[in-house]
Amino acid sequence: MKRPLITLLTDFGLKDHYVAAMKGVILGIAPEAQLVDITHEIGAYAIAEAAYTLEQAVSCFPEGTVHLVVVDPGVGSSRRAIVAEVGEQTFVAPDNGVLSRVLRGGGVVREITAAHWFRQPVSNTFHGRDIFAPVAARLCSGGLGDAREEVGPVIEDPVRLEEAEPREVAPGEWTGVVLKVDGYGNLITNFEAEHFRKITSGGFELRVGTGVIRRTVTRFDEGFSNEPCTVSGSAELIEVIVNKGNAALILGASAGTKLRVKLTV
Amino acid sequence: MKRPLITLLTDFGLKDHYVAAMKGVILGIAPEAQLVDITHEIGAYAIAEAAYTLEQAVSCFPEGTVHLVVVDPGVGSSRRAIVAEVGEQTFVAPDNGVLSRVLRGGGVVREITAAHWFRQPVSNTFHGRDIFAPVAARLCSGGLGDAREEVGPVIEDPVRLEEAEPREVAPGEWTGVVLKVDGYGNLITNFEAEHFRKITSGGFELRVGTGVIRRTVTRFDEGFSNEPCTVSGSAELIEVIVNKGNAALILGASAGTKLRVKLTV
Amino acid sequence: MKRPLITLLTDFGLKDHYVAAMKGVILGIAPEAQLVDITHEIGAYAIAEAAYTLEQAVSCFPEGTVHLVVVDPGVGSSRRAIVAEVGEQTFVAPDNGVLSRVLRGGGVVREITAAHWFRQPVSNTFHGRDIFAPVAARLCSGGLGDAREEVGPVIEDPVRLEEAEPREVAPGEWTGVVLKVDGYGNLITNFEAEHFRKITSGGFELRVGTGVIRRTVTRFDEGFSNEPCTVSGSAELIEVIVNKGNAALILGASAGTKLRVKLTV
Repeated sequence: MKRPLITLLTDFGLKDHYVAAMKGVILGIAPEAQLVDITHEIGAYAIAEAAYTLEQAVSCFPEGTVHLVVVDPGVGSSRRAIVAEVGEQTFVAPDNGVLSRVLRGGGVVREITAAHWFRQPVSNTFHGRDIFAPVAARLCSGGLGDAREEVGPVIEDPVRLEEAEPREVAPGEWTGVVLKVDGYGNLITNFEAEHFRKITSGGFELRVGTGVIRRTVTRFDEGFSNEPCTVSGSAELIEVIVNKGNAALILGASAGTKLRVKLTV
Repeated sequence: MKRPLITLLTDFGLKDHYVAAMKGVILGIAPEAQLVDITHEIGAYAIAEAAYTLEQAVSCFPEGTVHLVVVDPGVGSSRRAIVAEVGEQTFVAPDNGVLSRVLRGGGVVREITAAHWFRQPVSNTFHGRDIFAPVAARLCSGGLGDAREEVGPVIEDPVRLEEAEPREVAPGEWTGVVLKVDGYGNLITNFEAEHFRKITSGGFELRVGTGVIRRTVTRFDEGFSNEPCTVSGSAELIEVIVNKGNAALILGASAGTKLRVKLTV
Repeated sequence: MKRPLITLLTDFGLKDHYVAAMKGVILGIAPEAQLVDITHEIGAYAIAEAAYTLEQAVSCFPEGTVHLVVVDPGVGSSRRAIVAEVGEQTFVAPDNGVLSRVLRGGGVVREITAAHWFRQPVSNTFHGRDIFAPVAARLCSGGLGDAREEVGPVIEDPVRLEEAEPREVAPGEWTGVVLKVDGYGNLITNFEAEHFRKITSGGFELRVGTGVIRRTVTRFDEGFSNEPCTVSGSAELIEVIVNKGNAALILGASAGTKLRVKLTV
C-alpha cells in the first residue's frame, strides 16, 4: 500500500523545535504519512529563494505528493492561507508568492477557510503548526477527493512574485541575475539553458561579480583550476561554476547579483 | 496500522555518523518505527536548552510516542540512565536534568537496569548507540505493557534542573532570563504570557541587552522596522521580537541574558 | 512487513533541493522505502571523510540495507558508477574510492551499466538524482535477487584510497594522522585502540597540534578541565578528547593533522 507523502520546506532552521512541532501535528492526524524534508534552511523570510528551491524539488516527486511550504513573514496578519493543485500535486502555503514558480503553468488555488481543521487555539505566530500542518495532513490522508472542496473557495488572484527574466538591454547585450547560490558555491542564473545556447552560439562574454567568463563546459571536470565557466545545470538553467571550487567566493557573487552577457557575433 | 513513533533529540550535530548510528540500531530492532528528528543542534552539553526544546515539541506529538533524548556530558560515568512515562508518552534519557521540564507535572521514572537489551559491547563514550537507542526501540515495538516493568526499578529522585522562574525583586520590579534564542533571533523568556499580561496591564518597561521595550504586539508584522517588541509566543511564553529582524543581534542578547521589567503603574 | 531501508550520505548540504530531489526519485520508484540520512554535511568533494563516516554508520544498520553514497567531484566524467555488495548490505556510489573502507574486508563490485534504470534525460551534473537514486530504489524494492545481475558486470579494480595506517618511523616512535574531527571537536585518529594499548603499555607521549598528551582515560569525565587525553572511541579508534571541551580548537588540529607518538619504555 502506498503511503501518503508530505514534503516540508521552511525557513525555520534545524536547531529549534518548530519543524518537529509540525511533524508531530501531521502524524497525530495522518500517522501513516511519509515525511520528506526539502529544506529548512531557506534564509529567514526569503520568499523568492523558497519559490525557486520548491520548483526544483517538485519535479522529482510522484503524483499525489502534498508539499507543505512555510516561509511566512506575514504570519498572523490578514495574508491568506492557500492550497494549490498543480498537475497531480498539492501545495499548502501562505499566499505571499512562495508558490509563484510552481504556478507558472497554471493550477487551481483555494483560500483555506476550513477553520474546523485547525489546531486550537490558533496562535498568532506559528501558523505552520496550527493551520498549515493540520491542513496538509487532512489533504494527504484519504485522498483529496472531498477534502478539496472543504478547503475553501477558489481564488483567481494568488500573490505572484515579479519574474526575473533575462532582458536584452541593447543589441547583443543581455542582463540577468543570480537566482541562488547553492551549497557548493555554484551560481544558478535566470538564463534558461536552451535560450542561452541559442543566443550565445557565436561566443559570449559574461560578467558577474569580479569575473569575466567566456567558456562553456558540459561537465564540471572540464574546467581548469580556479576557472569560472558556464554549464547547463541540472535545473536546465545556466550556472556559473568552478571545477572543485566555490564560484560564489571566487567571484564575490551572491543571490541577487546582476549578470551582463555580451554576444561576440 | 499505526506505526510506532520515535523522536530523537541530541547535541550530536548533523555532520557525523552518530545520529545515523542510533537510527540504524533502532531500525534493526523495530523496523516498522517512524523516526522524527526534533533537533540534533542543541549546543554541546547544553542540558537546559535541550530540556526547553523537548518540552516545546512534546505537546505536538500523539499518545504513544517514544522520545529519545541524548545530551549526555556524563556518558560512561555513574550517572543513571532513565525511562520516564508522562501522560501517554515515554522518554528515554540520561538522568542529568534533561527531562526536568517534561516532568514538571509529574510522571513515573525508572532507572534502566535491563542490560540484556543493550548493544554489546557497551562503549564508554556512546551510550546513545549502545543503551538509549536499543531501549527506545524495545519500548516502542509491541507497546509498553510488559516492557515497562522490565526496564528497571522506579526511582523517586531523578535529577532536576533549578527552575528559572521570574522573581519580584522590589515592588513593581521583576527579573527574568532569556531561556533560548531561536533561529530567527527571537528571545524566548521565562515569563509566562498570561502572568506577564496580568502584571503589566498598566504598562511596562522591559530592559534586555541594549534595549528598552515598552510595547506589546499581537503579531510580528505590527512591529516597526528595527523596533523590539514583546509578543505572546507560540509556547505561551513572552518573546522579545523584531518584525522581520533579528532581536538577538539588535539587542546583543543570548540564552542566559537577564531581563528587568519595571511596571509603570 | 519489513520496509526496505535506504540510507543517504552526500556532500550536498541541507540548504538546497538536491537531497530532496533524490528522495523524491526514490519514493516514486519504491514508495514503501524507509529513508535515513547518514549525513549531507561531508565537506565538498571530501571523499576520505565520506569513506570514514560511511564505515562508522554501516555497522549499525541491519542486513538488507541499501546505502546511497554521493560524494562525486567527477560527476559527468568517465569515472564509473558502481554497486558493491558487502556482507548483507549494498552500496551504490561513484567509483572514486568512497567505498574504500567498507570494501577492506572484501565484497563484490559491479559497474552500473543498466541505463534503462536511469532517470531520463541524464544530466551531466547531477547523477545523484538521475543515476544513483533510481538504481538504489530498484535494488531495494523487491530484493536484490535478479536485480543484482541486471546492474552490470563484476569489476575487480574499484578505486581505492591510499590507507593511512600508523607507521613505526624509528624504534619506539610512531606517526599517525587525524582522520576526522567530529562535531564536539574530538580528534579521531588512525590508531586502532587495541594496537595503541599494546604499544603504549609502558607509557607514551603523543604530540598533535600544540599539545603533548601522556594520559589515557576510559571515559570523558575522567579528564580534567582543558586537559587533552586519549580515549578508546566508539569506533574502536584512539581519539584525542577534552572533557566537556573542544580538543580541535584547544590543540589547533584538524582532519589531516599529523600525530607523533613516542613510547616511554
